Amino acid sequence: MTADAPAPSAAAPSAAHPQRTRVVIVGAGPAGLTLANILRAASVDCVVLENESREFIEQRPRAGFLEEWAVRALEGRGLADRLLENTVAHTECEFRFAGERHRFPYADVSGHRHYVYPQPLLVTDLVREYADVRGGDIRFGVRDVEPAGIDTDRPSVAYTDPETGERVRLDCEFIAGCDGARGVTRDRMPAEHVTVARHDFGVGWLALLAEAPPSSDCVVFGIHPRGFAGHMARGPQVTRYYLECPPDDDPENWSHERVWAELHARLGAEGAQPLNEGKLIEKRVLAMHNYVVEPMAYGRLYLAGDAAHLLAPIGAKGMNLAIHDSLLLGDALVAYYGKGDDSGLRGYSAACLRRVWQYQEFSQWLSDVYHGASSGDPFKAGTSMARLRRILASPAAATGFAELFLGKDTDY
Amino acid sequence: MTADAPAPSAAAPSAAHPQRTRVVIVGAGPAGLTLANILRAASVDCVVLENESREFIEQRPRAGFLEEWAVRALEGRGLADRLLENTVAHTECEFRFAGERHRFPYADVSGHRHYVYPQPLLVTDLVREYADVRGGDIRFGVRDVEPAGIDTDRPSVAYTDPETGERVRLDCEFIAGCDGARGVTRDRMPAEHVTVARHDFGVGWLALLAEAPPSSDCVVFGIHPRGFAGHMARGPQVTRYYLECPPDDDPENWSHERVWAELHARLGAEGAQPLNEGKLIEKRVLAMHNYVVEPMAYGRLYLAGDAAHLLAPIGAKGMNLAIHDSLLLGDALVAYYGKGDDSGLRGYSAACLRRVWQYQEFSQWLSDVYHGASSGDPFKAGTSMARLRRILASPAAATGFAELFLGKDTDY
Repeated sequence: MTADAPAPSAAAPSAAHPQRTRVVIVGAGPAGLTLANILRAASVDCVVLENESREFIEQRPRAGFLEEWAVRALEGRGLADRLLENTVAHTECEFRFAGERHRFPYADVSGHRHYVYPQPLLVTDLVREYADVRGGDIRFGVRDVEPAGIDTDRPSVAYTDPETGERVRLDCEFIAGCDGARGVTRDRMPAEHVTVARHDFGVGWLALLAEAPPSSDCVVFGIHPRGFAGHMARGPQVTRYYLECPPDDDPENWSHERVWAELHARLGAEGAQPLNEGKLIEKRVLAMHNYVVEPMAYGRLYLAGDAAHLLAPIGAKGMNLAIHDSLLLGDALVAYYGKGDDSGLRGYSAACLRRVWQYQEFSQWLSDVYHGASSGDPFKAGTSMARLRRILASPAAATGFAELFLGKDTDY
Repeated sequence: MTADAPAPSAAAPSAAHPQRTRVVIVGAGPAGLTLANILRAASVDCVVLENESREFIEQRPRAGFLEEWAVRALEGRGLADRLLENTVAHTECEFRFAGERHRFPYADVSGHRHYVYPQPLLVTDLVREYADVRGGDIRFGVRDVEPAGIDTDRPSVAYTDPETGERVRLDCEFIAGCDGARGVTRDRMPAEHVTVARHDFGVGWLALLAEAPPSSDCVVFGIHPRGFAGHMARGPQVTRYYLECPPDDDPENWSHERVWAELHARLGAEGAQPLNEGKLIEKRVLAMHNYVVEPMAYGRLYLAGDAAHLLAPIGAKGMNLAIHDSLLLGDALVAYYGKGDDSGLRGYSAACLRRVWQYQEFSQWLSDVYHGASSGDPFKAGTSMARLRRILASPAAATGFAELFLGKDTDY
């Protein structure tokens, strides 16, 4: 399946008569689509390959928070028109613990805001802009994607065309591995040149969508001896909730009654609005774990987004990092093709990893805060409460926390 | 052995004819002696009991850093004359990693300084002031100290007199447990009313004293894949060094040659002065672990200092916390006896624990920074470097770090 306006390279796709393009982008998530739009705007020839259908990726539920720098960067690329019309800006959050509510006005502290814009909407916008407006080449439903020759000057990506069943080969100059945590591109990097740093938090989150109006005017984080709980508005009639649970828990263990009893217990606080209950329309267990692939590039393969680094939803960082990578990679490729300047490509991995590691550290720090009280370890409980009290009491600690929460100036 | 000027209560010490005093202070370290001086200045009758001799405690090597608030508090109690004459104020430290030096000017950032004054000197000053100047009752070399009746209004402490061999009983109204990590008072608290939160860092530090001039004008922290190393001046001709090692390591495994080779490797950096080698006059392995006893009071027993909470030398916090506890406990007892106000005593444990937990959290945070690179875990290595880079690059993070490093405004 090709885009409405075929790219110049879209003719004669078969393994016997390989096509040519400059950059093959594997994966049409926020990373791949941001990159594709940047390349297309600069007339750098590229093709996007995606396993799933357009309808599927435009509805796949994922993250919902964008940091202000990311919104401004998308805006600067002409990729934020609908986002800016439809997003809700957040300026504060609320921590609840020991039966008390503590507002944290991060916008006052940092001068920056959080933007709620669910990933499916962003993906829809980015596909439309790339394929329908800018006439980019994107092929959905491809099968058995197989990158090759990444350590040569002539890499290629082969795939099976879903309509003809034929094997197609795309010869190219660069491969962008934007194919997420379970993608195939990362595994092409030779193991002896790559370190994969992993962290398993040892906890799970039961991710819930409830058909119920939000029960607070902002995001709420409940820290409780029974486990963490979270509340996030997803519109006037839908609310996302999280409940800490064992990482291998079965969603079927969580009946409607049990879910609401736990949410009431863990999010209850003096003066808090009672929770609006509603039908649970999604119930998934997320095992919390993170990883980082170093370096993020090898030969002609450049990884971006979840293919290179995973963050548990703690801190809502994943989509932001994917965009950050793609901005850097897009600019680096444009500089390479436009000016013969390869410094951006050479520095790509190190530049990405600076922010990646700041976010990983923040994710772990915040996980300790959220899960200390319920860890059963009184030392972890004590130190996690010390962190919370500090960011609520010390202006310097509050500013440092807000910088990380909003991803401001963390590029070191 | 009694002090030069016997206290009114010092007559007829025997178990058959018990003595009376108001407060028995068990232990003559910084906690017990600070408290004793405060009580003595307010004419609250007290007796200090100490297992060791006066000569021993005046020479026992221990911590060396005092935070500015602690120095000012001691000064305000008339306990800092010699300290202020002989201390060296520090205004910055240096981190070394990846072969580079990074100065951290914490005094510029926080407006506060660190004071180097080894604990034996402070103990000498506090004993002199209490016993020789203020005429306080302090009994050295006592054996088999046995607190009793802490859940009654008439507690007591019995001990064996080192000269007569007789059992002596001191009836009192309060017992201050200032007898350190291996003391006897803490164990009198009923287990069902106490939580002991423990954290084992899983690493050791080889603590070294070298007969060699310092090799830097400030404290140096070396973060290295071979392990942490530290450098601290202890005078013009003596320098303290630390080398990370297994927690159960034998100091005999560390020859002169091995010690200096490791120090050169771990503290080497571009532009750094070569280390001045010298004879190693102390070589001990410290297993890094922390604990917190909650609550810090039960009945008529009040714990202060290491009896209530231990901090590994990471962060140089122990002596400061001991002084903080004793200031609070001294003021609480003076208010109780002077004005019948027991609010300080009732709030003692919670007030101490706020700072205790901030320092415990800092100690753990800093331990992760120091030991991440050598942990063998690439995730820990990455996040620890992210922390270091952040405090060196972000003004807010630097201020937050300096506040904790100097114990400023951490009373929340």
